[in-house]
Amino acid sequence: MKQPESIAKLINKFAKLGGVGYKTAQRYAYAIVEMSEAEAAEFAEAIYDVKRNVRYCAECGNFSETEICEICRMRDKSVVCVVAQPKDVAAVEKTGAFTGVYHVLHGTLSPLEGRGADDIRVKELLKRLGGVEEVIIATNPDVEGEATAMYIAKLLKPLGVRVTRPAQGISMGSDIEYADEVTLSRAIESRTEL
Amino acid sequence: MKQPESIAKLINKFAKLGGVGYKTAQRYAYAIVEMSEAEAAEFAEAIYDVKRNVRYCAECGNFSETEICEICRMRDKSVVCVVAQPKDVAAVEKTGAFTGVYHVLHGTLSPLEGRGADDIRVKELLKRLGGVEEVIIATNPDVEGEATAMYIAKLLKPLGVRVTRPAQGISMGSDIEYADEVTLSRAIESRTEL
Repeated sequence: MKQPESIAKLINKFAKLGGVGYKTAQRYAYAIVEMSEAEAAEFAEAIYDVKRNVRYCAECGNFSETEICEICRMRDKSVVCVVAQPKDVAAVEKTGAFTGVYHVLHGTLSPLEGRGADDIRVKELLKRLGGVEEVIIATNPDVEGEATAMYIAKLLKPLGVRVTRPAQGISMGSDIEYADEVTLSRAIESRTEL
Repeated sequence: MKQPESIAKLINKFAKLGGVGYKTAQRYAYAIVEMSEAEAAEFAEAIYDVKRNVRYCAECGNFSETEICEICRMRDKSVVCVVAQPKDVAAVEKTGAFTGVYHVLHGTLSPLEGRGADDIRVKELLKRLGGVEEVIIATNPDVEGEATAMYIAKLLKPLGVRVTRPAQGISMGSDIEYADEVTLSRAIESRTEL
């Protein structure tokens, strides 16, 4: 015997969110069944609202409800933090340590997956360099992220822009004993004066 | 800077599904933003559909799109498997090993959380015992599940119904070395002839 059809369909939708297995999707669908009519309607409307209201900021490419996002409208444009995805903007914002603006690439270079420079928002970055003094390239410290950072740095440096990358090293609260060799060797290379 | 309001609202909705933290909820909400208009609309409609179509089966209490569910309509009613939640029905069904009908309690006895016999569907179980030869009580083998099973067994036995409980023992593919003592001692007590 299988699930009632509407439930099977909803499980299927949840399973499409990425990183959601069947059991988890089933749990979510059952949670919806157990919700009040009003709560479920609010959920469905929140989905419609997001599709109605959210677009990409015409400047930085982050999610926004206006043509130009709040960050691009209000903040210091002399420093641009380049990230791969909107979720990285959320992560940097949470630190409160950055007061400049962002540029979301929507991807990284990946020859294996056939993503080249035209598939990520590099051209858009080059167009907004007027008045920019520093570009921090905060792509992930993995193969694709490093390659993307190198590529962008090579484009920007001849234009006289300072190009930086967040420091790599051992994480707060971690054990030196368990740090991987690459991380530990970079941490030692970039050691700081006390 | 915070998330665009529609996204913040959707994150909030996902976070209410249970077992979903902020980061995960954000990932789901972003996945919705990245969906096509049509996909997102199908998702929202699937939520509405579930609330429109799914109710509890009047007999067993499981999810159903009809007054009496398919399992209650089609299967052997002489054996009833009592479970705490609809998800347990899905788990037993997946084994294919059970051909009887179910009874969903929608909870277990829990003095700590103030759930007594009137808060779970025990009365409904007593009402449908005509023609029933065996009741398998498949509540979880934890304190609340065991207590619930004991309570129901005490009610049913005087009525001449055979009351059973799924065997406890070591799991398939597990290591005896790592089995907890209670499980291992029960497995030895209930050892089977080869």
